[in-house]
Amino acid sequence: MSVLLEFAMFPTDKGESVSDYVSRIILFIDNSGVKYQLTPMGTIIETETFDEALSIIKGAYETLENDCNRIYSSLKFDIRKNQDDRMVKKMQSIEKKIFNK
Amino acid sequence: MSVLLEFAMFPTDKGESVSDYVSRIILFIDNSGVKYQLTPMGTIIETETFDEALSIIKGAYETLENDCNRIYSSLKFDIRKNQDDRMVKKMQSIEKKIFNK
Amino acid sequence: MSVLLEFAMFPTDKGESVSDYVSRIILFIDNSGVKYQLTPMGTIIETETFDEALSIIKGAYETLENDCNRIYSSLKFDIRKNQDDRMVKKMQSIEKKIFNK
Amino acid sequence: MSVLLEFAMFPTDKGESVSDYVSRIILFIDNSGVKYQLTPMGTIIETETFDEALSIIKGAYETLENDCNRIYSSLKFDIRKNQDDRMVKKMQSIEKKIFNK
Repeated sequence: MSVLLEFAMFPTDKGESVSDYVSRIILFIDNSGVKYQLTPMGTIIETETFDEALSIIKGAYETLENDCNRIYSSLKFDIRKNQDDRMVKKMQSIEKKIFNK
Repeated sequence: MSVLLEFAMFPTDKGESVSDYVSRIILFIDNSGVKYQLTPMGTIIETETFDEALSIIKGAYETLENDCNRIYSSLKFDIRKNQDDRMVKKMQSIEKKIFNK
Repeated sequence: MSVLLEFAMFPTDKGESVSDYVSRIILFIDNSGVKYQLTPMGTIIETETFDEALSIIKGAYETLENDCNRIYSSLKFDIRKNQDDRMVKKMQSIEKKIFNK
Repeated sequence: MSVLLEFAMFPTDKGESVSDYVSRIILFIDNSGVKYQLTPMGTIIETETFDEALSIIKGAYETLENDCNRIYSSLKFDIRKNQDDRMVKKMQSIEKKIFNK
């Protein structure tokens, strides 16, 4: 099974720039050992179980909860059985369809 | 603390109509005892902790996992300290601003 | 055709409470004449064309652009041919499946 | 101004694999000349105006509308004044904070 999760999480009570807070989350993800990819709009992780993905969300939240009064988060899951390594393969499949035609 | 979570979750391998699958999730939420509101685009729940919200997501997923090959989900959190019952109060606050002016 | 759009839009450079800004958007939507429903996590509109929904998003943005330095928005579309009035019917269909069983 | 838009759009009446449909959208974006980045969960574009971003969404939808009965789309905007080229700079800022510490 492949669980792809794209998410952004940030405080909305800290003014216009929130990169200090986002950095905490990325550092947590980097330390967690999970497969991940940074994008300009969030972070994409890939796990083998749904529970593992939920535990990353929980850990991300815990990096912010102590000093943030209001936190916003937007998430998307794409979960598919009988597949793996879709972080790489999903994009290769699209790129092949488009640019090899 | 008030954790508002809006989410939609559905299989994408079951054709155009997925209301049978969505119904399972709503039934699970209804049985869970959590405060919730159905909308035409998903379900909004309110919990007092982040963990409780995550456990609802986990339970929703488990109603689909056995017979769905591909599941998509989109979620938004709005988490705020020192507030409660925002499912009601957030809307009242907006409505008051707009229509009592 | 039925275009359902759920969206939230708010500035992130104005501190913890943004209801003044959200109210502008709701007021714009209310004045636009489009079918809509307020939820604790955003606004759901229903239109007959995709273009009409895009024009509402554009108008919502224009209520904020002058005095907001940073704006965040999260949106979901569910577009379906050969259906109408889903703002009501989608929920009735789910509720019937769950509670009339 | 920098308008970052992350979005996914796909039919839900075409079974488990939708890469043929997603490819149409990517091809449209590639031909449009807009700055973009493919991710395993969608496409990120950067434009200088909100209208330009809306026109990309409109074009993406038009690649699917003829032969899809039901279309789902999830989108996020991050719009910021007085900044540019954030597709690159936003990530550099985060990476610098994390890995140069």
